Amino acid sequence: MTSTALEVRLASRPKGWPTDENFEIAEVDIPTPGEGQILVRNVFMSVDPYMRGRMNDVKSYVPPFQVGAPMEGGAVGEVVAVGSGVDNIAAGDNVLHGLGWREYAVVPAAHTVKIDPSVAPLSAYLGVLGMPGLTAYAGLLATAEFKEGDVVFVSGAAGAVGQLVGQIARLKGASRVIGSAGSPEKVKYLVEELGFDAAFNYKEGPVAEQLAAAAPNGIDVYFDNVGGEHLEAAISSLNVHGRVAICGAIAQYNDTTPPAAPRNLAQVIAKRLTLRGLLVGDHKALQPQFIAEVGKWIASGELKYSETVIEGGASKAPEAFLGMLRGDNTGKMLVKF
Amino acid sequence: MTSTALEVRLASRPKGWPTDENFEIAEVDIPTPGEGQILVRNVFMSVDPYMRGRMNDVKSYVPPFQVGAPMEGGAVGEVVAVGSGVDNIAAGDNVLHGLGWREYAVVPAAHTVKIDPSVAPLSAYLGVLGMPGLTAYAGLLATAEFKEGDVVFVSGAAGAVGQLVGQIARLKGASRVIGSAGSPEKVKYLVEELGFDAAFNYKEGPVAEQLAAAAPNGIDVYFDNVGGEHLEAAISSLNVHGRVAICGAIAQYNDTTPPAAPRNLAQVIAKRLTLRGLLVGDHKALQPQFIAEVGKWIASGELKYSETVIEGGASKAPEAFLGMLRGDNTGKMLVKF
Repeated sequence: MTSTALEVRLASRPKGWPTDENFEIAEVDIPTPGEGQILVRNVFMSVDPYMRGRMNDVKSYVPPFQVGAPMEGGAVGEVVAVGSGVDNIAAGDNVLHGLGWREYAVVPAAHTVKIDPSVAPLSAYLGVLGMPGLTAYAGLLATAEFKEGDVVFVSGAAGAVGQLVGQIARLKGASRVIGSAGSPEKVKYLVEELGFDAAFNYKEGPVAEQLAAAAPNGIDVYFDNVGGEHLEAAISSLNVHGRVAICGAIAQYNDTTPPAAPRNLAQVIAKRLTLRGLLVGDHKALQPQFIAEVGKWIASGELKYSETVIEGGASKAPEAFLGMLRGDNTGKMLVKF
Repeated sequence: MTSTALEVRLASRPKGWPTDENFEIAEVDIPTPGEGQILVRNVFMSVDPYMRGRMNDVKSYVPPFQVGAPMEGGAVGEVVAVGSGVDNIAAGDNVLHGLGWREYAVVPAAHTVKIDPSVAPLSAYLGVLGMPGLTAYAGLLATAEFKEGDVVFVSGAAGAVGQLVGQIARLKGASRVIGSAGSPEKVKYLVEELGFDAAFNYKEGPVAEQLAAAAPNGIDVYFDNVGGEHLEAAISSLNVHGRVAICGAIAQYNDTTPPAAPRNLAQVIAKRLTLRGLLVGDHKALQPQFIAEVGKWIASGELKYSETVIEGGASKAPEAFLGMLRGDNTGKMLVKF
């Protein structure tokens, strides 16, 4: 084992779109796990939209990254050493934890979850069976109160969360599932591989027009990963008593001016719509049900998922993150160490 | 009985704020009730914010008024004649119905509700015991899912709906009730007469600052009668899992450009807020419970209400309506014939 390893630090806070200069790749000594800690060699790390918010110095539901300190986020890896007092985890085990963006992480054993690579590939625990999966599941069923027969529209539909939202809706009896994505290839993938009833490329024309064409009888549920023009279009297409789960607004994360908010909020009254924000942390109680149901669909082949894996470890992580913000990925965007 | 009477017609559709020229006072023959119909001499008619929307040629939850035709809206009056086949209503009875904006109305008996002036004054059936009352009751308890201990903020708090929202919240165990209104007299009335814990004049400074000062621990429920700056301020003050009942946006009804929407919608995610539109028509099931509970509070003096009554009948109705849009009224705005 080498004695040093790479980590990715926040070098400076971005204004608008992040650039390479906002990140620093630093070489550090590999630490020794103390009491109750384990040392993990990361195998995959996650890059997620919410991390863009943590790069700003704004109080939110997760604290901001600190300039000069390593960034954080979901990762899976192999335990290489355990500190004293750790008796439920051994070297060679695989764990899920929250200290990505580095090759080696020392974490309290109590902050990790042991995972079984014979049940699903390690990477799945960061995606379809992990935080994005539960976000899709809980957001559709709890936040948006999906019910059989609903017409469901999801934006960012080819992303880690979006592709699950659409498929869960289909498997739960949606009468129609519509997705938007940012390339013809993604649109084709949604319809031909994932069983969406309709999909469109939001770059090819006004979202409101494309959505109205795809949903001639309106929509009942909108799962919002994008914000902005998509949210406004969805409000216009929603039927009476329609519901919106607001999960993200990736279209706006790099805006330097306040975002253009939907100008048609008056329709929220006329159509008695419900708009509700979604954070996965509120829905831990659904975790067992989520694993059971989605695990069964994956095993049967009824639910598919894709991943975009960037090889090259820590030094490639900033590029992977920026690519995810641009929508380069289909499915979960991961960095492999 | 005279043979002619006045009615108010929509002369033209307003652009921005309505003016006298958008209304026409016409003299018409008093009609004779046909089969199943009754003739009502109106005593009070209601002017309500939602009527501004009906002056536009826009499809909504109620159809637009037609140019050249009489306007419509809640009214109470005395039955002066009944047509053939009407056996449950007699001359001299008092009824609530939907054909205001005229001195005499012919209405299908089945579209009227008999009301008892010995239980409450006729005017109360257009306000505290009528549509605005049920709007306040259902909006707070059902739409906003109020629960004991909540901090509640209501805008338009001195209006027909707002003054009930605040008092119902207080009587149901809110930990703090805050209102905004448009004059020092109204602010004083809210605190000294209606038992609000705090109130402020939105014309005296930024709503966000005044609300933050009045609600140092944030708010849990916002009942929105106003929209615009108020909604944005409320989103900033709402606590995690806070709820908004969006009832109206009177600040924007006369805007000729798309309204400035809240620029802080991202907080809907971070704080997992719920924004939900409210129309009273969805909540008829709560009517008996509403009448029982609010009737009891009125009888005991625990709940107060006020009315602003404009004398002069149909010819004064446009002026009363415009005054209501400007906020001239405290409590329910009514026209007396």
